[in-house]
Amino acid sequence: MKIAILMGSKSDYPTVQKAEDILKEFDVEAEVRVISAHRTPNVAADFAEKAEARGIEVIIAAAGKAAHLAGVLAAATPLPVIGLPMKSSTMDGLDSLLSVVQMPKGVPVATVAIDGAENAALLAVQILSVKYPPLRDAFKAYKAKMERDIIAVDEEFQQNRE
Amino acid sequence: MKIAILMGSKSDYPTVQKAEDILKEFDVEAEVRVISAHRTPNVAADFAEKAEARGIEVIIAAAGKAAHLAGVLAAATPLPVIGLPMKSSTMDGLDSLLSVVQMPKGVPVATVAIDGAENAALLAVQILSVKYPPLRDAFKAYKAKMERDIIAVDEEFQQNRE
Amino acid sequence: MKIAILMGSKSDYPTVQKAEDILKEFDVEAEVRVISAHRTPNVAADFAEKAEARGIEVIIAAAGKAAHLAGVLAAATPLPVIGLPMKSSTMDGLDSLLSVVQMPKGVPVATVAIDGAENAALLAVQILSVKYPPLRDAFKAYKAKMERDIIAVDEEFQQNRE
Amino acid sequence: MKIAILMGSKSDYPTVQKAEDILKEFDVEAEVRVISAHRTPNVAADFAEKAEARGIEVIIAAAGKAAHLAGVLAAATPLPVIGLPMKSSTMDGLDSLLSVVQMPKGVPVATVAIDGAENAALLAVQILSVKYPPLRDAFKAYKAKMERDIIAVDEEFQQNRE
Amino acid sequence: MKIAILMGSKSDYPTVQKAEDILKEFDVEAEVRVISAHRTPNVAADFAEKAEARGIEVIIAAAGKAAHLAGVLAAATPLPVIGLPMKSSTMDGLDSLLSVVQMPKGVPVATVAIDGAENAALLAVQILSVKYPPLRDAFKAYKAKMERDIIAVDEEFQQNRE
Amino acid sequence: MKIAILMGSKSDYPTVQKAEDILKEFDVEAEVRVISAHRTPNVAADFAEKAEARGIEVIIAAAGKAAHLAGVLAAATPLPVIGLPMKSSTMDGLDSLLSVVQMPKGVPVATVAIDGAENAALLAVQILSVKYPPLRDAFKAYKAKMERDIIAVDEEFQQNRE
Amino acid sequence: MKIAILMGSKSDYPTVQKAEDILKEFDVEAEVRVISAHRTPNVAADFAEKAEARGIEVIIAAAGKAAHLAGVLAAATPLPVIGLPMKSSTMDGLDSLLSVVQMPKGVPVATVAIDGAENAALLAVQILSVKYPPLRDAFKAYKAKMERDIIAVDEEFQQNRE
Amino acid sequence: MKIAILMGSKSDYPTVQKAEDILKEFDVEAEVRVISAHRTPNVAADFAEKAEARGIEVIIAAAGKAAHLAGVLAAATPLPVIGLPMKSSTMDGLDSLLSVVQMPKGVPVATVAIDGAENAALLAVQILSVKYPPLRDAFKAYKAKMERDIIAVDEEFQQNRE
Repeated sequence: MKIAILMGSKSDYPTVQKAEDILKEFDVEAEVRVISAHRTPNVAADFAEKAEARGIEVIIAAAGKAAHLAGVLAAATPLPVIGLPMKSSTMDGLDSLLSVVQMPKGVPVATVAIDGAENAALLAVQILSVKYPPLRDAFKAYKAKMERDIIAVDEEFQQNRE
Repeated sequence: MKIAILMGSKSDYPTVQKAEDILKEFDVEAEVRVISAHRTPNVAADFAEKAEARGIEVIIAAAGKAAHLAGVLAAATPLPVIGLPMKSSTMDGLDSLLSVVQMPKGVPVATVAIDGAENAALLAVQILSVKYPPLRDAFKAYKAKMERDIIAVDEEFQQNRE
Repeated sequence: MKIAILMGSKSDYPTVQKAEDILKEFDVEAEVRVISAHRTPNVAADFAEKAEARGIEVIIAAAGKAAHLAGVLAAATPLPVIGLPMKSSTMDGLDSLLSVVQMPKGVPVATVAIDGAENAALLAVQILSVKYPPLRDAFKAYKAKMERDIIAVDEEFQQNRE
Repeated sequence: MKIAILMGSKSDYPTVQKAEDILKEFDVEAEVRVISAHRTPNVAADFAEKAEARGIEVIIAAAGKAAHLAGVLAAATPLPVIGLPMKSSTMDGLDSLLSVVQMPKGVPVATVAIDGAENAALLAVQILSVKYPPLRDAFKAYKAKMERDIIAVDEEFQQNRE
Repeated sequence: MKIAILMGSKSDYPTVQKAEDILKEFDVEAEVRVISAHRTPNVAADFAEKAEARGIEVIIAAAGKAAHLAGVLAAATPLPVIGLPMKSSTMDGLDSLLSVVQMPKGVPVATVAIDGAENAALLAVQILSVKYPPLRDAFKAYKAKMERDIIAVDEEFQQNRE
Repeated sequence: MKIAILMGSKSDYPTVQKAEDILKEFDVEAEVRVISAHRTPNVAADFAEKAEARGIEVIIAAAGKAAHLAGVLAAATPLPVIGLPMKSSTMDGLDSLLSVVQMPKGVPVATVAIDGAENAALLAVQILSVKYPPLRDAFKAYKAKMERDIIAVDEEFQQNRE
Repeated sequence: MKIAILMGSKSDYPTVQKAEDILKEFDVEAEVRVISAHRTPNVAADFAEKAEARGIEVIIAAAGKAAHLAGVLAAATPLPVIGLPMKSSTMDGLDSLLSVVQMPKGVPVATVAIDGAENAALLAVQILSVKYPPLRDAFKAYKAKMERDIIAVDEEFQQNRE
Repeated sequence: MKIAILMGSKSDYPTVQKAEDILKEFDVEAEVRVISAHRTPNVAADFAEKAEARGIEVIIAAAGKAAHLAGVLAAATPLPVIGLPMKSSTMDGLDSLLSVVQMPKGVPVATVAIDGAENAALLAVQILSVKYPPLRDAFKAYKAKMERDIIAVDEEFQQNRE
């Protein structure tokens, strides 16, 4: 039960780390790599082509601006690829969102919100859960805890107002 | 091996049907339903809550405008939910794209391109392939055929120019 | 004469509080709750279904990103629902605005400006004023004071320039 | 129980008429007028100032492009004003949406979707329902019928696929 | 030779002041007022209706968000109205730009760049110059100086690089 | 009393002609030219430099896409330049609007709505009216007629509904 | 003196052909290929890697939606790559424009206007002209003819109005 | 082997300097100038007309807002012009991107990413490389080093995680 998280630049790590942390919570092994679709295209292609054989089951690709990483990986692997668009210094993330999500027919990328690293990890967990029942149970527990947490926040908020 | 495709309105079917056709190619059973997050919220919640127990493994949700269907389903099921934003008569699909993809932390929706019904289905196939090896093989064959088709188009195009 | 203000996350409170302050000025009782369409969908549905019977007359729903809260509540209650789109860290509020306002036919949400908490409250007051004449008078007085205040600012500004 | 629908140009009537039709269904009397914030500003101001005294309880204002009509009316009346942004030949409705919804603090406009005439009318009905219990009942019946209709469409759709 | 600068809120003054400074350079008298289309609609209408008789020849209107001030003034005066869209805390100024510039047929507003206060003043000067030849000469001198300044900056920049 | 209307391409004429028609109504002589900032830059510069001496008092510049014509003319003449952004086949007019209106400090362009040819002409009339009192009277009459026309449309509309 | 034009889909050819026609006018040999970054990634990489050795001097890449083709080629070749964003059925070309132009540091793509096939070809000609003086002369002649053509259109337009 | 970098304002230099630094790395001589399309149009036209004769082979033009500089230069020179759109205080760079890239047929501008100064320089290098083989070699070495650097970052990142 192993996934890979690729980021186009090491400067993306503070955001990407939130995905890694979620995966640790679920005991999903994550290989985190700095691989660029544009600066190390051969490494990217090589990674994508060998990923399945190496036992990776889902790939998360984080990139900003004209974010081609997810699409480039999706082109070269049958594995599900989750695209995580990163906001950069211009265009408020719209450029990376459109570059990731508007994939042409035949090569989908499962896109999450701009800078939505936690959701990229949770989506990976949901996908793996199709195969691994204990992970499904863990995800249900996570969802239930999230619900309880909000309910607790709400209750505490009500009490403080009295 | 069964997935569900929900659409917010029956008028979405001409697009949604393209997803269904892809799933037929892969012999994945698809339950197609007209369920609206806003007009039949109880049906939507009920569907989402029972989907796992009914053997559904992935849900595709197609909706336009303020497209809440995918998010509403994702809130109520641990299954992976694929969001298919539909272009409506205003805003060129941007409204549904943002309503589907910009999900808050904790509840991801795997979003594909606006009107990208084929990719919604192919993503569902990729997700199921994590569990079902023969589906992985079928997907590889699909990808290979797609590659051969483009190469054939290219070759024919070259010949016609000579 | 009671309204409810729901916010998707407690971090929305600094903005939401401005709505609450306005309602206090008008002596309109406000129940303020932290309820998420995505993380506590059952609480949200339950709240919406019981709101009318509990004497709530208008609901304000504040949420950011793919802001489904207002739509989800509107789906489950006959009460007027005011949507307050919140700006989050990406897309400058456009995502929440479109997610709130572009509701499909049949289920309206009365949308105010991005981060426009005061206006959400004033709109609630205007709606209640249809029923409660003294509130209409109070709103007229508020409007008149607002007018006098701007006129006073203008006069002071002119004097300081002489 | 009377509302007014104002449109900036008679060419808006095909869309506005959908609002009128909804109001007829609910037996809500609607005065429909062609009044422009920019071309007949005095008529607009006069209308807004006298609306309350004439027994109008809610105003719907439909306009396109730099759609100031709703804001201009809201400035001059204490009545709730529903803004209906109309798509014109450029900018896909975004210009009118932003011109209607982004009202400054103090003067809210209850904005519905671009070209969302039915929802403008339904929102008016919801607002009036705060005061008139039979209208609340009628709205609940409308909502219930809408739910049944979608369920029927879904069932028929399922049967045709068998 | 007198113009008026109206701003929707006193908080706009730091930007508006740049327009005033330009007008001082050209010895054009400027009346600066805080008048809101939405909060003091009667003052705005009254101002616009009397402006011509009071000797004002051009009006500059600065406003943010759903910026109706310029349009409302233009509706009520035959004088040329210059619209100055102000950036507020959301939508990066696009909302005010579209609210100011997309005026319907019959009532133009001469729109300048978002936050472009200096250009609003210079445009007023250009308009007045149609009538006042000395102002035309002053504007030509301003333009020539601007050209010389850039050329000097360029020359100094070249020298510092040697 | 003479103005010039320049268009970047002859294909803009169907829209530009609406400006010309308005000017004819006001007996303002209009020189209409096909001059491109990019394809005939010398003609454009020459035109702008000589315009004042030739008795032209206002220039209207219509262009689409990266619409530089108005800015290029404004750079080379002290005359007021009205920018008319034209919608082309992509980007729904936003590209030309931003290219025309977002002028840097020092060189304003008086921008009207996308495809707003009539308003470009009316703005030219308003500008000329600063100098020519009879034109001011004609503009007031135009405005009054426009108001009467809308009022008549409204009245006829009311009667047809009875 | 040879360039390559790659398009992501054969359906792009009607637009791409305009680039080819321009190149024929300049006697620049053009190899036109159907190669997809996502569906035939190996062909794309192979093409890019061998292009220089095969004597190709500039590459034009046309693609729509999440248009990665230009970026993928630029990653794998030292040749200048011209990106031609194609408008598809949603988002009015903005998605492909941002996907093509917003390339990260290190791997530029020379981007032209959405659907700007002629300009892609002319830019290729300009680039080749740096090396081939006769092509520079031909380009100057093209530019001069374009200028004469506009001037002739303008003159004819003036005459027809007399 | 000489290029020119023009910027519309000296305040653009901190970004433009990154382009200059890249060119130094490649031993390409760069003339850096402060020339404004709008404030020094004659200097701009003069520069463009003489650039070829002065031995300049490529021009980079950096400008913000309604960024006409690149287009104005391209209109007046046969040299390839690289447009560098600069983000200013409003519209997040979209205004300058569209003003630079959406050039009409006949006059291309090779546009790079918003604030993408390094890529503007690298594109200039790629264009010059068509003519100068040693520069091609230097560019290949740059590309190879960039690849090695990312690989090293990735390896170091992996080691630190062990």
